[in-house]
Amino acid sequence: MELANTAFYEALERGDFDGVSDLWLDAADLADAETYAGTPDTGGDAGTIPEAAIVPVPLPDADTGGPDDAEGPESGSDGPAISCVHPGWPVLTGRGEVLRSYALIMANTEYIQFFLTDLKVSVAGDTALVTCTENILSGGPAPQDSEELGPLVGQLVVATNVFRRTPDGWKLWSHHASPVLAESGDEEGDETPS
Amino acid sequence: MELANTAFYEALERGDFDGVSDLWLDAADLADAETYAGTPDTGGDAGTIPEAAIVPVPLPDADTGGPDDAEGPESGSDGPAISCVHPGWPVLTGRGEVLRSYALIMANTEYIQFFLTDLKVSVAGDTALVTCTENILSGGPAPQDSEELGPLVGQLVVATNVFRRTPDGWKLWSHHASPVLAESGDEEGDETPS
Repeated sequence: MELANTAFYEALERGDFDGVSDLWLDAADLADAETYAGTPDTGGDAGTIPEAAIVPVPLPDADTGGPDDAEGPESGSDGPAISCVHPGWPVLTGRGEVLRSYALIMANTEYIQFFLTDLKVSVAGDTALVTCTENILSGGPAPQDSEELGPLVGQLVVATNVFRRTPDGWKLWSHHASPVLAESGDEEGDETPS
Repeated sequence: MELANTAFYEALERGDFDGVSDLWLDAADLADAETYAGTPDTGGDAGTIPEAAIVPVPLPDADTGGPDDAEGPESGSDGPAISCVHPGWPVLTGRGEVLRSYALIMANTEYIQFFLTDLKVSVAGDTALVTCTENILSGGPAPQDSEELGPLVGQLVVATNVFRRTPDGWKLWSHHASPVLAESGDEEGDETPS
């Protein structure tokens, strides 16, 4: 099980788009799955409400990265509902959005290395849940007129990866990565213990 | 399926600790599951490496919130490996750590309301994957000498929730929530499309 998780990060390190693509579930893998977008719930405060009632929130540029950025990833044409959250990003759904995001990240990353720690695996039936800390060292493309790498940056990120067992091995169903904010991060003020 | 997701957020809104607790998988629910911490992998750059080789990273205070903060959540005594990531936090594993975090959050939150949007559900076998945007409005306890609420704060958070089907209905196996950073958030510089 850890091998599938490791293979995913190794493919990212190599900038191997096809390798990353192969590790995500595709339509054939999820033949037994059903996918749907939620319908509004009328029974309580926490129910979903029509999006029109919410003030639009600006999304990162990445979400509009390509001219082929089709609407309606939940329509089914985009494959099964794999989902992916990069640190600080909104949710990406469907192979189209998810794989496009990796192409963009790879195009802008000259060097990236993941040191995984705190790996924990929980398996139930044909689903595996993996959590880990990604200690990331990365560098962007070289500045103009330079042969050298851009500055290296370290990032502390935690990830929850969900895999499904398929005839071709474990495949990624969901990846959610988020930054770990420093101790002084009071943005989550109401979550700070007294 | 959406009902279990909605019930989770409604229990949080009510500050209903028992309700939240009931919605997380417990040992009896995951009788068929296996849980283990990853072992170091010698086969590649992205393999896990011994934690001792990594410079310790400061954790939020919340992680040391109680005197009963036992080590080794993967030991099994803490129940099955449910996991939870609050926005900006490291991974919490096991019912002990996870439920303690909710007790702390509830103790420091006078008012919280979730407006869920972008709800997407994907079901495969006995596992359901739910992604949603949590538009959060919350307020802390009143300042001293005041009858009024603390200032209300809005937050934009995305969540990936994983549920397992049990005889008692769908139960949470994993919750991962992370902040959506503004468009100008260049912390993820190498993820910005060109």
